[in-house]
Amino acid sequence: MADHIEPLTKLAEQFGRLPGIGRKTALRLAFSVLDMTDEQANEFACAIKEAKTKIHLCPICQNLTDKDICDICADDTRDRSTICVLEDPRAVLVLERVREFKGMYHVLHGVISPMSGVTPDKLKIKELLARCEDSEVKEIIIATNPTVEGEATAMYLSRLLKPLGIIVTRLAYGVPVGGDLEYADEVTLYRALEGRRDV
Amino acid sequence: MADHIEPLTKLAEQFGRLPGIGRKTALRLAFSVLDMTDEQANEFACAIKEAKTKIHLCPICQNLTDKDICDICADDTRDRSTICVLEDPRAVLVLERVREFKGMYHVLHGVISPMSGVTPDKLKIKELLARCEDSEVKEIIIATNPTVEGEATAMYLSRLLKPLGIIVTRLAYGVPVGGDLEYADEVTLYRALEGRRDV
Repeated sequence: MADHIEPLTKLAEQFGRLPGIGRKTALRLAFSVLDMTDEQANEFACAIKEAKTKIHLCPICQNLTDKDICDICADDTRDRSTICVLEDPRAVLVLERVREFKGMYHVLHGVISPMSGVTPDKLKIKELLARCEDSEVKEIIIATNPTVEGEATAMYLSRLLKPLGIIVTRLAYGVPVGGDLEYADEVTLYRALEGRRDV
Repeated sequence: MADHIEPLTKLAEQFGRLPGIGRKTALRLAFSVLDMTDEQANEFACAIKEAKTKIHLCPICQNLTDKDICDICADDTRDRSTICVLEDPRAVLVLERVREFKGMYHVLHGVISPMSGVTPDKLKIKELLARCEDSEVKEIIIATNPTVEGEATAMYLSRLLKPLGIIVTRLAYGVPVGGDLEYADEVTLYRALEGRRDV
């Protein structure tokens, strides 16, 4: 029957393409659009188009923005001597939520992964190097994810950056706060032991 | 930070208004729109607008359709002497999936619920009565949900329809097929006992 109402099927298909949305949920979401007022549905459609047309990359940090230069890069109160390197714009959100880091960011838009055809030239690495030529930059914190690809990317970057006389650091590995040792995996525990600190 | 990228926040808010989509999922979905190509995002936006503009109610059964008369009402092979009355268009999909029922449908678009201000005149009841004046109609199967409001609506309809000389039936209550007696609630078991049949 849903196959008979083509616009409904099409809309459900569109929802079904979103990550984590299955066939049944997609149909429920499509029905919910029909329950909206015309104005609400229009706003929804416009929000999709606007997000796509207005958002571009900040020419400095490569993070997403709808302005010429993103708010963080434009903020004069932030510490320009430290750049935190991240895999994607979602990570910027997460780090900003900590409210502790006051330096700048640089978004790579991926990690080196020869298996998936992602070579260093496909990432925003040359933009990072260009920023590092600025004498202001003193430290680069590499905060790629603790995966094989994230590690490899961190190694690659540190080899490029250290010769420029920049301090290159990596986020600490260890047991998550509030976690239970019992549930920590061996590699994490090994890294936590390795990185132990004086009390 | 997400608050700084206004089009992204707006899109996340739109997703967050959909049923069952929380704040985090909404943000993830908004990001996924940015990962789409321009064409894909456009298709998505168009699908929303099209579903809203093209889909209307079938003048006969009040089900959703994008045609003048819905496919089921237009289908000459279906049995016009039986009408199955349902709460909403989703239920039509479910019943059609059974592939057993070959009669017609009538969608009420709700159930009588004075608490929520839904009085009989807000439902598609007069359209149902108009259909019943047609001498072809012999049986009305009331398949509203087995809730208090669904029951009340079924009672109300049967009182209206019986004087017209129409057989009014209700879906059978009982233990779900494949279920376990242990998990059936008392009311369902009581109704299953009450409706017991010869083997």
